[in-house]
Order: sequence, then structure tokens, then C-alpha cells
Amino acid sequence: MSSIWGSNIKISLFGQSHGKAVGVTIHDFPAGVKLDMKSISGWMKRRSPGQDLFSTSRKEEDSFEILSGIVDEKTTGEPLTAVIYNKDIKSQDYEDIAFLPRPSHADYAAHIRYGGHNDKRGGGHFSGRLTAGLVFAGGVCEQVLEKKGVVCGAHIKSIKDIEDKSFDLVNVSAGLLRELRAKDFPVIDDKVGNKMKQAILFAREKGDSVGGVIECAIVGFPAGLGDPMFDGVENKISSLIFGIPAIKGIEFGRGFDISKIYGSQANDDFYIEHSKVKTHSNNNGGINGGITNGMPIVFRVAVKPTPSIFKEQNTVNLKTMQNAKITIQGRHDPCIVKRAVPVVEAAANIAALDLILGDKRWIWT
Amino acid sequence: MSSIWGSNIKISLFGQSHGKAVGVTIHDFPAGVKLDMKSISGWMKRRSPGQDLFSTSRKEEDSFEILSGIVDEKTTGEPLTAVIYNKDIKSQDYEDIAFLPRPSHADYAAHIRYGGHNDKRGGGHFSGRLTAGLVFAGGVCEQVLEKKGVVCGAHIKSIKDIEDKSFDLVNVSAGLLRELRAKDFPVIDDKVGNKMKQAILFAREKGDSVGGVIECAIVGFPAGLGDPMFDGVENKISSLIFGIPAIKGIEFGRGFDISKIYGSQANDDFYIEHSKVKTHSNNNGGINGGITNGMPIVFRVAVKPTPSIFKEQNTVNLKTMQNAKITIQGRHDPCIVKRAVPVVEAAANIAALDLILGDKRWIWT
Amino acid sequence: MSSIWGSNIKISLFGQSHGKAVGVTIHDFPAGVKLDMKSISGWMKRRSPGQDLFSTSRKEEDSFEILSGIVDEKTTGEPLTAVIYNKDIKSQDYEDIAFLPRPSHADYAAHIRYGGHNDKRGGGHFSGRLTAGLVFAGGVCEQVLEKKGVVCGAHIKSIKDIEDKSFDLVNVSAGLLRELRAKDFPVIDDKVGNKMKQAILFAREKGDSVGGVIECAIVGFPAGLGDPMFDGVENKISSLIFGIPAIKGIEFGRGFDISKIYGSQANDDFYIEHSKVKTHSNNNGGINGGITNGMPIVFRVAVKPTPSIFKEQNTVNLKTMQNAKITIQGRHDPCIVKRAVPVVEAAANIAALDLILGDKRWIWT
Amino acid sequence: MSSIWGSNIKISLFGQSHGKAVGVTIHDFPAGVKLDMKSISGWMKRRSPGQDLFSTSRKEEDSFEILSGIVDEKTTGEPLTAVIYNKDIKSQDYEDIAFLPRPSHADYAAHIRYGGHNDKRGGGHFSGRLTAGLVFAGGVCEQVLEKKGVVCGAHIKSIKDIEDKSFDLVNVSAGLLRELRAKDFPVIDDKVGNKMKQAILFAREKGDSVGGVIECAIVGFPAGLGDPMFDGVENKISSLIFGIPAIKGIEFGRGFDISKIYGSQANDDFYIEHSKVKTHSNNNGGINGGITNGMPIVFRVAVKPTPSIFKEQNTVNLKTMQNAKITIQGRHDPCIVKRAVPVVEAAANIAALDLILGDKRWIWT
Repeated sequence: MSSIWGSNIKISLFGQSHGKAVGVTIHDFPAGVKLDMKSISGWMKRRSPGQDLFSTSRKEEDSFEILSGIVDEKTTGEPLTAVIYNKDIKSQDYEDIAFLPRPSHADYAAHIRYGGHNDKRGGGHFSGRLTAGLVFAGGVCEQVLEKKGVVCGAHIKSIKDIEDKSFDLVNVSAGLLRELRAKDFPVIDDKVGNKMKQAILFAREKGDSVGGVIECAIVGFPAGLGDPMFDGVENKISSLIFGIPAIKGIEFGRGFDISKIYGSQANDDFYIEHSKVKTHSNNNGGINGGITNGMPIVFRVAVKPTPSIFKEQNTVNLKTMQNAKITIQGRHDPCIVKRAVPVVEAAANIAALDLILGDKRWIWT
Repeated sequence: MSSIWGSNIKISLFGQSHGKAVGVTIHDFPAGVKLDMKSISGWMKRRSPGQDLFSTSRKEEDSFEILSGIVDEKTTGEPLTAVIYNKDIKSQDYEDIAFLPRPSHADYAAHIRYGGHNDKRGGGHFSGRLTAGLVFAGGVCEQVLEKKGVVCGAHIKSIKDIEDKSFDLVNVSAGLLRELRAKDFPVIDDKVGNKMKQAILFAREKGDSVGGVIECAIVGFPAGLGDPMFDGVENKISSLIFGIPAIKGIEFGRGFDISKIYGSQANDDFYIEHSKVKTHSNNNGGINGGITNGMPIVFRVAVKPTPSIFKEQNTVNLKTMQNAKITIQGRHDPCIVKRAVPVVEAAANIAALDLILGDKRWIWT
Repeated sequence: MSSIWGSNIKISLFGQSHGKAVGVTIHDFPAGVKLDMKSISGWMKRRSPGQDLFSTSRKEEDSFEILSGIVDEKTTGEPLTAVIYNKDIKSQDYEDIAFLPRPSHADYAAHIRYGGHNDKRGGGHFSGRLTAGLVFAGGVCEQVLEKKGVVCGAHIKSIKDIEDKSFDLVNVSAGLLRELRAKDFPVIDDKVGNKMKQAILFAREKGDSVGGVIECAIVGFPAGLGDPMFDGVENKISSLIFGIPAIKGIEFGRGFDISKIYGSQANDDFYIEHSKVKTHSNNNGGINGGITNGMPIVFRVAVKPTPSIFKEQNTVNLKTMQNAKITIQGRHDPCIVKRAVPVVEAAANIAALDLILGDKRWIWT
Repeated sequence: MSSIWGSNIKISLFGQSHGKAVGVTIHDFPAGVKLDMKSISGWMKRRSPGQDLFSTSRKEEDSFEILSGIVDEKTTGEPLTAVIYNKDIKSQDYEDIAFLPRPSHADYAAHIRYGGHNDKRGGGHFSGRLTAGLVFAGGVCEQVLEKKGVVCGAHIKSIKDIEDKSFDLVNVSAGLLRELRAKDFPVIDDKVGNKMKQAILFAREKGDSVGGVIECAIVGFPAGLGDPMFDGVENKISSLIFGIPAIKGIEFGRGFDISKIYGSQANDDFYIEHSKVKTHSNNNGGINGGITNGMPIVFRVAVKPTPSIFKEQNTVNLKTMQNAKITIQGRHDPCIVKRAVPVVEAAANIAALDLILGDKRWIWT
């Protein structure tokens, strides 16, 4: 599906880092939803670059222009297109290195994929800048989810080896998720957050970079959504999440750790509370057989260190096919994790709305 | 897409654990491929139950019947359907517990999803038995991949906290993958394998279960395949892999660990060897920007402990909506990891062939 | 999508005319639907060959075996697979002509498409026999539609130049559709039907064949279903209908004739009747902008004369690449139109249920 | 798939008639194609309104802005987005009639579909203006097809009951198609063209409208493309074509007329010419079993009279739910057929490239 994703709503992303614009078209969005544009601007701002020392100095306001799908601030149900123009572009930074693929960037793979015709400026369509459209779409989807009582939120679970507290898999609350969203540096334990910031600044000073883990939760999600075998919650979320650059792993519930305990410890046994079925533990992250069970959906994603570092690196010259050296210029995030938090949340929102819209149980009645 | 997966080949899975049969239809498979049926039987045998003490005592030969798509052992290009009949069924084991969802099984989620109409016998369509069709498809795909010099293989990376050696991300070879496939218990270090077996038998004796991690590699895969942003290698593989029951996480290359090191350590710098572009390290698992870079593709998946344990567990009675107890009867694997190895390999084969068939660069010429 | 069709329910067809079986898997079918198997058998019988002089002498009972998706005659929501075994096969009829493509059959096109590896016996996957799976699926879908008050039905509009009455586009009723279904030779005017039969027998005697037009209506269909621009009712129905062999055209409402009148004559003006919006005429066949408007959906399809005729024809020998002659042996329908009626109805049922399941307006409430 | 179409290339259309812009994103377009922008502007001009008395007086230059996917006039392989801004908008024409659905427009159906939230100005997303994006995409696709020797072209086959000559199904040539494209009023017989113009002007004077039939051919198309059963050439083309507003029918080859002749007359018998397999007649329009046979692909589409007429019509007031009258103001085409010719050609180009890119026979080699 390329840069199109979705079954019940569909997003079509476009743009390159140093092209005229990036953007998104959302198809099949529900009609008649009054959009709070201020809220969406807040989403864009959380992702936008140039805010502080922890991210790139490229400054983009990431204000968006709506081309279609909205009349009088209400969705019309027709395809909704938003464009974010690129403004602070310094493409000369890339001219010298057009044939020197940057290690662990998409440069080389894309060169082979597109026969060298891909836009090499700023990583082209492979740039993290493409997530601006994703965040817009996430902010839009949220406004439907809110009415359904569904809340998605995330925090920085770790930067390098510095670990924040984990979500309580059973009791993670909408309140905590909203609290985290209001934070400038979204961690549960702010003291840990300060250590993380220091680690990022340390890497920045060294011309190096660090990665981390983002933990995301969806609460208030109804049981019984998702389909076997390939349209399950995990399939859907992961197929969307791996569209975000720099993500190298995803795990649900207790994730990889669940493989280290006994079944008797891992199983989430059921009980009734106020006529509702619940589980004592939530090691499966709210998902059984690909279908939600009504407990919080929790997943974690691994974000690699920004591959743009300022140290000299080995590379090859794709013209001469000889070994070469590269020292990356330009403006880059020493750590992309903080800015990736709203992107992961946005993806969670989009997947959640797609799952909800996929509910066809009303046919029974 | 439900129980249908794929873009360039498509698989449509059907069946329930205790129904008449399980099976698969493969659409868009290349025509004229002479299929080595013995090889496919070997695949089925590796996955089949009842082989030893490490797995369920349910005995199924898993011999398959071809209903369409093959004439004189050659594929016709038309939809290829294989059916595996269910023989050794003991459904009475499930009658008593139809309304007592087994913890961490799909029972409860499916009950809500299907309004209680889903086939409750043996987990229905959610059973691991459905992977028989997947393994058949993987075995069929392999026969095209072999001609392209692509080899997929996997080993048990860990059982509970007992760890096998990891694949050398840079140098993992087709030879090692084939060697592992010939092993009855596929680990690199057989001594570790023995410890794993003991751990499984220990869990079995206790009426408990254990999980583990499977590491899979694809070698010989060409550079330049996969598409941004949602049709990348990670998106494709994960969307397929999470269709396998009991998998709760996936990571590529160095995976979650890459978030713990500096960018200068994580980056896979390029060099030329025999006019071919290679990387010194392979922390990205052969994938940059969703596209292959010619290095081995390596990923790991977390397999949870089999939720079927023989200890008494808490559950709820969905008829009376009261708390209840359940003691699972029936025949179950104390550890599904070994049997899941060929399933993960099969998924890798299917995804690999889908990626290769998605190569449209010939249009340039 | 190959032999897979659908968005909200999906059908995956498989099989070849002279292979072991043909069949279908239906994905995403609603759970808990009690299936009237006798009704489905009735559907199969209407399509089945060997009933009378107007069709092929190949005798197939077209009894089906359910492999999955049904427990105690109720759908489970899991993939529903039905297999129809091929019994009365005389493949020797085809051996001599494997390299002599039959004019206007798929033989030559498929030979190029599949490099000669396609199943040449009886047209392989291109045979009209594949519609058995489609008819099964249509019969299953009908049982949901009935509860929603939606009825699909069709009649033979013409055989060669002999024309039955047309449906009244505005007033076509469920009663008439049911009446037609009960007829052995489904025409509105039985006298015309007799002339049609004579024309078919005349062609049969001459070793020739005739085609015709089938007119299909869907009544009781709610307004507001279908999506612009490519998921509209016409797009959906036509993409499914052209999967039926021998169909060369489709038109909705007044169809091609609407191009011959003035806008003032063509426009379907609105009025209110019993608080319901209706139109005086229905030249648009119940569809505006791809979306239903509550009036009957009516379409017509052109069925070409069966290409299997017994007269000697020119062809080429694909081995020697020289001109050749062919005289088709075997058993063939002198006119496929009558047997195609339930196939077109089945397609209408499948498309109608897909459209209904695609209704997401409940999200507003 | 909504306003997304395609398998091997994908187009995502957006915009409303009186919104800020209409446009298209093309995904999976081949990289490295040097685009002749002048040629694309020519395509846009052929479709653009306000050119003469035969069409609406709304004037739109339909100049496009490329937002992504092109660098230095070459495609990058990344999503290609073009935006056409709406300039000459007079929305006040629509305010009075927001609740008075125009007969045979999408107004009423869309009102029900979107709960009244759809953009009512100028038909919103249902306007013929949306085809500007389709035409852009067609013009882009053509530039790849040309290199493959594939040429698509169309003419006005009829306006009302005035008929142009038909394409010679066997011998229609690229030369004729190019000649037609250069004509201001694309008919084979210019004398007939003059009569058509008079008929259009006559309807215009009466405040009425006329429709017609467009005949389209694709020549130079290779044999062996298209897939059974639902990914065939007819399925693909029709699923795309019915996305064009006002089209109510499609037929391939001899179309509906093939149902009126004997099989012995209808069959296209084969012969060898210069070592190439050809057919003497081409009643099947180059398609057998959904797959191309190397002969010209020919299809015809029925275009209804523009529903916007200036005569008073019956309608209903959706607010008061009472009968009402409507007299449409605004600027409208008395006949949309001429402007629809490049739209149908564009659709043919898009479908043709999608089919070519779907060719996977290289896997055999």
C-alpha cells in the first residue's frame, strides 16, 4: 500500500523534506465532526522542530492549510487534505553528499530502489518530516475518539539506558495520559526526565545521538474489536507504526519479557467487577487473538539513535564505487524520541479509529 | 484484510481447530513452478503436533490435499488451494468450558467479537492449528526463493531465560540456516538446547508452560525492495507475523537494544567489497527506510508461554456473569516455540516472495 | 485482487473446471446467521449444468461441502469455506486441443499470461464452472439481506434479438423478483420465453450458440450507501460482475439509452410520498454519484454467445505457430444466459451485502 | 477504496468543486521518468471549462502546482501530488438551494450518506471538477506508456442520436488516435461533428442538455496482462471509469450488440501474421477471460445528459420534507461529453499502466 495506510479510514501521505510541502489526505473520515483546530495545532506544535536544545535547529511552524474535506470547521466526509509547507530549507547542505549515502539513513536503499532518482535533499520522502501529516491525521482522529471515551497517550519510557517508570498495565488512566501530554518532556518521573535531558545534551555536545523507547497506551477501548488473523490489533498497529522512521521494534503488553516467565505467571485471569469482565494482570496488553478484551492496550516501540551524527563516518561514493568518508552537516536532532512521542500517539489514534470503524456487529441487530 | 494477507501474492486462510479441515488458498503464485512435494511435506512435519514430549499429544499427520492450482506437480498460476483435514479431534474436552473463557486465550475476546457464535472447540479459527496453512504456503514460496538464491531460516533464540547464541547479524549464512533446519531442536548451541528441553519438561511436569524468542534471518535478499512508508519490509513482515498466535513482539536487527547505544555505535557504515556495497555492522537488520540494503534481514519474535496450562485458574462464567474456576483439560504444548520455528520461517518466506514480486524496477528498462 | 473480491466481506474463489474441486472462502461474514441449507441448494441447482436441452449435458449435482465457518448450521464469523467437487469430468476431450486455442475463449490469453502452464482442461480457472462458488456465496449473503428487506432478482431480458419486457424501473417489486426466481425459464412474458427457447434449440441444432441480456434489480435497498469516487455502487457491482465469464457490458438504470434523450427527460425529479423521498422516474437506476438514493437498483449485463460452438473454426497451433483448424468436442451450453441468471443475482447479493456492511453512519450517534 | 484507486499504481483524489483546490496523489509511480509538463498542460486544457459555447462559462485555467514527487522535472518514485486551485468560484449560486436537491445530481444521495454535512457548493466532491486530478494522472501515466508503444485515444461516438463512425475494432491505429486528440471536437467524421455541435447549441438554447457515448481504444497493448477473476481488464477499467461522474454504462468490444449475433459470428478466430497471433475480428475488444490477447482494447461508455438544466424541475425541500420546485442557476455545460473525452482517455491510461506494472512474468526468467 506504499504511503497509503488503512482499511476503514485511509491516510495517503505525500511530500519530501526539502520539497514544496508535506501533507496527508484522509479518506472515509466520518462526516459532521466539528474539528477543534486549536487542538490540532497543539499536536503539530508538539512534533514541530526547533523548539529547544533537544532537537534540530530547523524551524518550522508546521502550520497547516486545509485544501479539502472541511466546511465551516466541520468535516464533510469527503477526502480531507492538509498541506504543511516547507519553509526553513537549506538544501545546499545536501548537494555535496548526494552520492555519499549517510550510514543508517535510507539514502543507499532508496538509491537502489529508485535508481538514484529519489529526492536526496534531507532524506526526501524518508525524512521524519513526513510524520507531520501523520500527526495531523492523529489529531483529527482523536476528536472522534474523545466522544467514544477512548484516550491514547505516550511517554518516553527510556533514553539510552535511563528508564522512566512503566505504565501500570492494568490501571493506566486517561488522567495520567492527559497529564503526560501537557508536559514539555513527557515522562512519568520528572527526575528521570532531567537525567534523560542531560544524556541528550551530552550526546549533542559530542556530535553524537541517542535513542530510546516510547510506551503508548490506549484506554477506554471497547472489547471485541480487531479481526483474526491479519487484521488484528497488533497487525494493524505495527503495520502503521513501522511507517515512522527510526522505529526498529514493537512489543505489546509485557512484550519480550513475557517469554521469560511461566504460563501460570503470564496468563491474565478473568474476574467480574461491576458486571464487567476484567483481568487481574494485563500481560497481553489488552489483546487476545488479535482482538481487544477491554483492558488497556499498551505497546512499546524502540527508537534508534538519530543516524545523523556529526562525527566523520565511513561510506561509499556511489558514483565512483569507492570507499569514502562523510561528515554530515545540516541541522539534526541529537535525539528524536521526544518529538516521536506525539507521532506514536497519532499512529495509535489512527489505528484506534480504524478499528472502531471496523466494528460491524451492528449488522446483527 | 482479515484472514487474507498480501499484496503481490495473497494467502487466504480458513478452518477451525476442530472443524472439518484447515487450509489455504494462495493467489497470484507464479506459474510453471515445479513443486517438490516431499520438501513441502517436510515443512508440514516440522510443524505437526504429537512428535515428542515437548509438544501436544494430539496426533495429526498434517498431510495435505491439493484442490486446485497444480497440474502434474507444476503450479498453473491459478489459485492454489491446499486442505489439511482434522483427524484426531476430541471436542468433548471443550464442551464443559464453552462459557468459561480460558485466560490469555482468544476465547473471551472472540466471544464478544462474534456474539458468542464463534467455534469454541479448540480455539476455533484462533488455534495454532491454523498455521498449518501458513506453513504450507511458506513451503511453496520457498521453492521460488531458492531459485533466486534467497534462504530463510530460524532458530530458538531463547526458552524462558535460557539463551542460545545470536545470529551474527553481518555474517549469518545460508549454510547455518540449512543446518538449523535439519536439526530436531533448532538451536545454534546444542548444549543450550538440552537445557531448554529440560526447562520445557520441567514446565510440563508442573502442568505449566514456557515461552521463548525465535530469531529468523533471510539471506541472499537483494537490495532495493520494499516501499515507504507502509509497505516497507518491517511493516510487511510484522503485519504477517502477528497473525501467528502467541506472538507479542517483533524487533529488527539489533531491535530494542539499539535504543541503548549511541548513534556512532548504532550506525552501519558502508564499504565496498568486490564492487558490492556492504555495511560493517548490521544493527538495522538489512533494512533502511523500510527498504532492503542487501545485508541479511534479521528479526526476532517473542512467543508467550502457551496459555493452556493445567493448573486451576480464575475465570468468569459468561452465562451467569459470575466468577468461576477453570482447569483446562485436553492436550496442549507445554511450549509452542519449537513448533513455531517453521511457522516463523514460513511467514518470512511468504513476505520475502511478496517483496520480490513487488519489484517493479524492470519498467525502467 | 485476482480471484479475491470485496471490501467489507471478501470472497476468495478457487478451482478449475477439470481439477478436483471448485470453491469459495467467504471472509468477514456476519456471525450467528442461521443458514437455510435447502435454500442454498436451490441456488446451486438453478446454476447447475445438465438440467435440460438448453444447457450442457455435463451432469454435476453441485452439492457442496462446508469445510469451515459453520457450526450447527450457524455462521461462526470465521472464514466460511465451501467446496464443490468436480465429478463428471471428461478431460480427454481437451487433450487434443491443448495447443489449439479455442476462439474467444481465454485459452490463448491465458497461455501467454501463464507461459502455457495454466490448466487447459475445460478452460481451467476461466471456466463458467467457477461461478459455482460465486453462487454459493450469493445464496449465503441473501440470508442476511432478507432480514434487511433487500431482495435481488433477475430475468432474461433478451436472447439474441428476442426481447422480454423490461423491469419497470420505478415499480419493480420483490414479488415479481420472487416470482421470476420460481420459474424454470425466468422471463416476465412466458410467450417470449418460448420463442427464446426455440432460438436456443435452433442454435443447438446448428452446432451454434446464442447470447443475451440479463436484467437484475435490487429492491428494498436503503438510500445513502456507496462511496465516491471508486467505491460507488456502479464501481462495486461492475468490478464483481466482470468476474463472470462471457459478460461484455453493463449498464445501470436506463443505461446507454439515457445518452439519447434530453436532460429534461432523463432527470429523475423528486417528490415526497408518505414522508419518504422518491423519484418519479428512475433513469439513474437508483444511484446518484455512486450512492444509492432509495429507488430500485437496476442494471443490465450483456452475455456473449457461448464461444464453444461445434462448427469448424480457424485457430493457430501454438507449438508450431502455424494456422490450424479446430472443431470443438465436449459438452457445451448452446446458450449460457439462463444458467447465468442466478450467477448475476448472486453477484448482486454479494455486492449488496458488501455495501450494507460498509455503512459506517452509526459512528455519528 | 473510496477516492483511492489502483493496485500497482494508486491514485488518491481529493477536493471539492468550490473548495480551495482539487488534486491527486499518485503512489508507486515509476522513478526517473522525465515529464513533459507541456504535454500535461495540454491534457488539462482539453478538459478545462470555459473554452467555448459547448461548455460551462466557468473559467478555470486548470494550471497545476506540483507539491511532491518531482525533482528537476523527473519523477522521484515518491508520491506525486498535484494541486489545481479553484479560482472562478461563485458559491452564492448554491446557497439558496442547499436543501433542494437537484434532480439526478448526487445532492440527495450524498445528503443521506453524509448526514447533510457534505459540501453542497457546486456538488462538492461529486463535481466533474474532480476529474481534473484524474486527467493530470492520466497525462503523467501516458509518458510511461508512450515508451512502451501503448497509445490510448477516444472520440465522441454519439451525441444524443447523432452517431459518429465507430472505430474499426481490428485496425484502429495509433495514428488515428493521435489525429483525434489534435481535433478541437474529437470525432472521426467532422460533418457528423457539426451536427453534434448544433444539437448541443440547440439544447443550450432551450436550457436543456444532451448526453452521448464516448468510444476509447488502447492500441499497442501487449497480450497476457490482467488476472482472473476480479483483476481482469474489464473489472479494472470499469471500476475506474464509474468514478467519472455521469457515466451509466460501459461495454467492451462489440458490447451489448454481441448478445444479438450467433457464436459463429461473434467468435474472433485466430491466425498467424508475421509470426504473431492475431484475430480476424475483434468482437471481444482485445480481452478474453479478463486478459489481453494483443488486439486493440476497445470500450464505449454512456454519458448521461448533464443533470444541470435551466428548466424548472420538481424536487423536495429536505428541511421541511415537502414538495418544492427548483430552477438551477449557475454556469453549466449543456453537454459534458466533449470535456469527458480526455477524462476517459486519462482513465484508460491509468488502467493501462496499472495493468502493465502488474505484469510479474519476469519472475520466471
